[in-house]
Amino acid sequence: MAAKAKKRVGILGATGTVGQRVIHLLRNHPYFEVAALAASDRSEGKRFVDACNWKLPFEMPDAVKEIKVQPIKPPLDCDVVISSLPSDIALETEGAFAAAGYPVISNSSSYRMDEYVPLVVPEINPDHLDMIAVQKKKRGYDKGYIVTNPNCTTIGLVMALAPLYKAFGLEAVMMTSMQAISGAGYPGVASMDIIDNVMPYIGGEEEKVEEEPQKIMGKFSKTKFIYAPFLVSAQCNRVPVQDGHLESVRVKLKKKTTVEKVIAALESYKGLPQELKLPTAPEFPIIVRLEKDRPQPRLDRDAQNGMATVVGRISKDTIFDFKFTLISHNTVRGAAGAAVLNAELLVAKGLL
Amino acid sequence: MAAKAKKRVGILGATGTVGQRVIHLLRNHPYFEVAALAASDRSEGKRFVDACNWKLPFEMPDAVKEIKVQPIKPPLDCDVVISSLPSDIALETEGAFAAAGYPVISNSSSYRMDEYVPLVVPEINPDHLDMIAVQKKKRGYDKGYIVTNPNCTTIGLVMALAPLYKAFGLEAVMMTSMQAISGAGYPGVASMDIIDNVMPYIGGEEEKVEEEPQKIMGKFSKTKFIYAPFLVSAQCNRVPVQDGHLESVRVKLKKKTTVEKVIAALESYKGLPQELKLPTAPEFPIIVRLEKDRPQPRLDRDAQNGMATVVGRISKDTIFDFKFTLISHNTVRGAAGAAVLNAELLVAKGLL
Amino acid sequence: MAAKAKKRVGILGATGTVGQRVIHLLRNHPYFEVAALAASDRSEGKRFVDACNWKLPFEMPDAVKEIKVQPIKPPLDCDVVISSLPSDIALETEGAFAAAGYPVISNSSSYRMDEYVPLVVPEINPDHLDMIAVQKKKRGYDKGYIVTNPNCTTIGLVMALAPLYKAFGLEAVMMTSMQAISGAGYPGVASMDIIDNVMPYIGGEEEKVEEEPQKIMGKFSKTKFIYAPFLVSAQCNRVPVQDGHLESVRVKLKKKTTVEKVIAALESYKGLPQELKLPTAPEFPIIVRLEKDRPQPRLDRDAQNGMATVVGRISKDTIFDFKFTLISHNTVRGAAGAAVLNAELLVAKGLL
Amino acid sequence: MAAKAKKRVGILGATGTVGQRVIHLLRNHPYFEVAALAASDRSEGKRFVDACNWKLPFEMPDAVKEIKVQPIKPPLDCDVVISSLPSDIALETEGAFAAAGYPVISNSSSYRMDEYVPLVVPEINPDHLDMIAVQKKKRGYDKGYIVTNPNCTTIGLVMALAPLYKAFGLEAVMMTSMQAISGAGYPGVASMDIIDNVMPYIGGEEEKVEEEPQKIMGKFSKTKFIYAPFLVSAQCNRVPVQDGHLESVRVKLKKKTTVEKVIAALESYKGLPQELKLPTAPEFPIIVRLEKDRPQPRLDRDAQNGMATVVGRISKDTIFDFKFTLISHNTVRGAAGAAVLNAELLVAKGLL
Repeated sequence: MAAKAKKRVGILGATGTVGQRVIHLLRNHPYFEVAALAASDRSEGKRFVDACNWKLPFEMPDAVKEIKVQPIKPPLDCDVVISSLPSDIALETEGAFAAAGYPVISNSSSYRMDEYVPLVVPEINPDHLDMIAVQKKKRGYDKGYIVTNPNCTTIGLVMALAPLYKAFGLEAVMMTSMQAISGAGYPGVASMDIIDNVMPYIGGEEEKVEEEPQKIMGKFSKTKFIYAPFLVSAQCNRVPVQDGHLESVRVKLKKKTTVEKVIAALESYKGLPQELKLPTAPEFPIIVRLEKDRPQPRLDRDAQNGMATVVGRISKDTIFDFKFTLISHNTVRGAAGAAVLNAELLVAKGLL
Repeated sequence: MAAKAKKRVGILGATGTVGQRVIHLLRNHPYFEVAALAASDRSEGKRFVDACNWKLPFEMPDAVKEIKVQPIKPPLDCDVVISSLPSDIALETEGAFAAAGYPVISNSSSYRMDEYVPLVVPEINPDHLDMIAVQKKKRGYDKGYIVTNPNCTTIGLVMALAPLYKAFGLEAVMMTSMQAISGAGYPGVASMDIIDNVMPYIGGEEEKVEEEPQKIMGKFSKTKFIYAPFLVSAQCNRVPVQDGHLESVRVKLKKKTTVEKVIAALESYKGLPQELKLPTAPEFPIIVRLEKDRPQPRLDRDAQNGMATVVGRISKDTIFDFKFTLISHNTVRGAAGAAVLNAELLVAKGLL
Repeated sequence: MAAKAKKRVGILGATGTVGQRVIHLLRNHPYFEVAALAASDRSEGKRFVDACNWKLPFEMPDAVKEIKVQPIKPPLDCDVVISSLPSDIALETEGAFAAAGYPVISNSSSYRMDEYVPLVVPEINPDHLDMIAVQKKKRGYDKGYIVTNPNCTTIGLVMALAPLYKAFGLEAVMMTSMQAISGAGYPGVASMDIIDNVMPYIGGEEEKVEEEPQKIMGKFSKTKFIYAPFLVSAQCNRVPVQDGHLESVRVKLKKKTTVEKVIAALESYKGLPQELKLPTAPEFPIIVRLEKDRPQPRLDRDAQNGMATVVGRISKDTIFDFKFTLISHNTVRGAAGAAVLNAELLVAKGLL
Repeated sequence: MAAKAKKRVGILGATGTVGQRVIHLLRNHPYFEVAALAASDRSEGKRFVDACNWKLPFEMPDAVKEIKVQPIKPPLDCDVVISSLPSDIALETEGAFAAAGYPVISNSSSYRMDEYVPLVVPEINPDHLDMIAVQKKKRGYDKGYIVTNPNCTTIGLVMALAPLYKAFGLEAVMMTSMQAISGAGYPGVASMDIIDNVMPYIGGEEEKVEEEPQKIMGKFSKTKFIYAPFLVSAQCNRVPVQDGHLESVRVKLKKKTTVEKVIAALESYKGLPQELKLPTAPEFPIIVRLEKDRPQPRLDRDAQNGMATVVGRISKDTIFDFKFTLISHNTVRGAAGAAVLNAELLVAKGLL
């Protein structure tokens, strides 16, 4: 990449919680540079440093401070857009960008289950990107297209399920989440709802987690996705934690196996991003901890710069085959990092 | 009761988190008065007000302040003991009290699964108290005996399961808990382990929840308990909440039914404590909330003075039949209140 | 009061955090009954049970559930209004109610420093109500008038200062607060701003605390208030606590004295509400705790039903004379309870 | 340094919260390598990876995992010891190490106020190290000596006071702290004491903060320290924050000045560590933030790798001259980083 010019990225929803993480991840990136920042009406025309209520415990990169915030619509002066918009406006806006010739790498939910839009986790289903050609034809896009990444709770789950599915087959998955407040953005969850409390409801979350894994772990066959035939049940809760979604999981497998083999399958799992050494790819996408009290949000969410899924407490279940606990950083691996890794994969495949 | 003298209660583990709740519940009690307080070596001989690091947001009752703390061994000058001792010392100590002629109402885990000890939730299995006669004979106790209440996570669960078991039969239960810190006593959970964090491990908890419900919901037949034949899987987590164990539950029933009938079964459930109007019995042992974001620890743990189980988010599950969320106050219904209600039932049945 | 009909209260801002507390305090009140509920546009015309996002850990009283929410403007079918409106709309609205003949008991900040409006803490300056006659004349009100209570941080502070001012004189006060999130209402403080964090800024708070005490502790002389001549410095912080404002205070007194005499002055302090046994008055307005680690929000905010100010850690200061820590429940004594106690005082004085 | 061998460091209290931070700071350090780890009886003889309950959100460095934990007494196979022991054992133990010939760089409180022991903040009073020669003579040490760093609350305070003292003179300082739980070590603060709560008491803390600044900012004159003649008043509170001590401060200066000049004095402050470019020295020891809601623990504690003091909310005070808020990372700048920076300064001065 050294000799080539960096791709110029436009960020849709740049002032939001995920937008800020994308900006942080793209500082000093070997493939990309931030070229345009788009956000809602209130921010338009302001310098980013004035428009953005920066909430990350890192400094805002100097390179973005003086960029003028633009409206969220084409044209934007950039080669590709990374979008994390609320789903109500993402449907129209992302479609408009694709139609206007922009590759759209989206963290929004609007297109995830679209029959012609790949829902990609680079370690698991990079071949789904072959749908882009079909999508362009079906939707009449010229150079533009849409690629999505999963919901922040789905992604940690599928990272742990994919090796098991591959090694042992999968029949059913029960997942109960304890999710961080940053998943709701800013201002998001009211503090009166979460201090000394748990919220047993996150709008739309259970439905997403119950349907996305089967698409991600399914097959791409010529012009369509064939969903993987297992069932997922999700119960989603919000807990007073800043970052990191913790998930209690039980799995029913097709083949009988042992805890040791489950651990081996998880620990040995690597994919195309590791092979290609993509800049944001974790060296080890899954880390297994054997201590009885791990993983924990505070200690494990930042493993491998927040891109690893940490799995622990793997044991036999009394009803299904195995139970375990996992953590995944919801705004890194679960959102901004997922989109950036997808972008890196697209570059590596020559699609960007 | 009015004409009768009050029963004189000795509290084992009086300075602990549960002991303090028992003292609070027995202030102005129509059947009972606190007569003796026993606690560990460090406290012996001190006035209770000096020995006890009182951590309840209510004032310590004046009636106990001047009582001298005694060692945890018989004799104690009282008619009955309520015990909440660490399991490592409960086994020997509670046995010694029973052998010395004291009825022991225990919140400890040591005797819960003992073949001759009833594990009682008064709404569910008051008939298990018939085991007391058998126990006395088998163990050679004269007037003493041991009655236990369940683990603090089990009790909220069985309160919700009992009506479903009765109405529809039960095959399997998956429970994932988000438990309050008060369940670990004081000092208990280190703050560094729980601020901005979740602990995915609570020693021994999953095992208890996986075996106690079948005993409680089983039958007493002459001289033995016949366990109810369903499976329970538990994953237990600790969250930064002072009081109230929240549980995400899925159930597989024997008969097919509807959400409406599940709600009706839960709401209409009453038992012997309600019939007898026992002083600590909640008027409605189960409260169903229909709002999408209830129950919550902060808003629902104190329902019916902390003696109700509040159930919400009842819906169809994608794998089992139904899923729901429940909350139960862990140190009231789950410990001190459970023991006091058992004591009240024993009085009502003439066993005390 | 028994024979008299209850006064009919209208609540302005009924769906808010303070409005909910007022409703809770007026359930079964001997002097008052809730007759009208007014709230912002979004709520108008709805039943209160549908309009209000009830956030108290008590049940909403049945008596208010079916009341239709009305717009916040006169006329309202009631004898008196209790108002807790945002300051931007309180100025015009409360004035309009007073002009329309309603006694207005306000928790808002708009009129607190008005030269003709009494800012009353019943234990401290009940005589300031004599300004009402002047106010009516100056403002051309007929039967209506406005009476205010202090800011939620001011009130705990002046409760502790008043006895010291009376006994020893007061030159200067340094107060640093650690305030609860409920003080900002709902949704109020974003959880991302307060989990594992402290916010060192609360808009307008320091200014209020620096000027209100001198009015409250000043004299009413014929037609004007003469402010007490001491200085206050305030630094206000928000901490992750649901209820209860904790304050670290240093005082410089006019007369030299001892810790023992300071304690005696605080403990013996009583006022007109205690003398009149007003329904909401705490029996002991100030409670002194001698333990080295009290007061604490969780353990002390609810003392005397949240109407007491709890003071502890009283000791010599190295620069000023004494330092101490106090807690006051911000939505009870600091808002809803302050307004209700003012209303009770007005009834007792024949002004309502 | 490149050509020289690294100094071999022994860590006393290696398994504790501060010990872990020291280990983290010394990974890949240009001057030092960890050679010996000493901890209490329970840990002796175990591999460090087995003995230490590692609580940092970073991985334990591989280099220390296999080191055998030794008892906390000389001899240890190392060139220098960094100690963070409980004060009750530090007095005897650190003295024994110094007598046995080890330079002791101590984070413990035992020797801080000793008349012959320098209490050093490298930016402020590096010349106090000249006391080492006097100390050796007075105490009969040969090669050993003791150098201390301040209490974790003191250090953030003196970092902000030193430039003001230098530029304007200082008469009095009022400081109210909101301190992180990590300051109490592990297990430290019980979660029941701090969730939804503030603890208004930290044993011994106020006394330390009230006396250490005058020594640090005083002069070394031949054989003794001449304390700076200003007064400090401290009120110390514990809040539910993992890391970072927030302090609300008022200062009374000798010369009148302006907010602008106060800001300029703080921002321009640099010292010997910056001049010498010591490895752990922050480029800017003091960062001034102008936003009204900064500094905050979550956003500012890690500034300059946790070695900066961040100051904000600088404004005129109604009683003293100025008030402001500061944050300092209590286990980095306030403990482990302070000791390591002292060690680096000793190397740079040829004393190690």
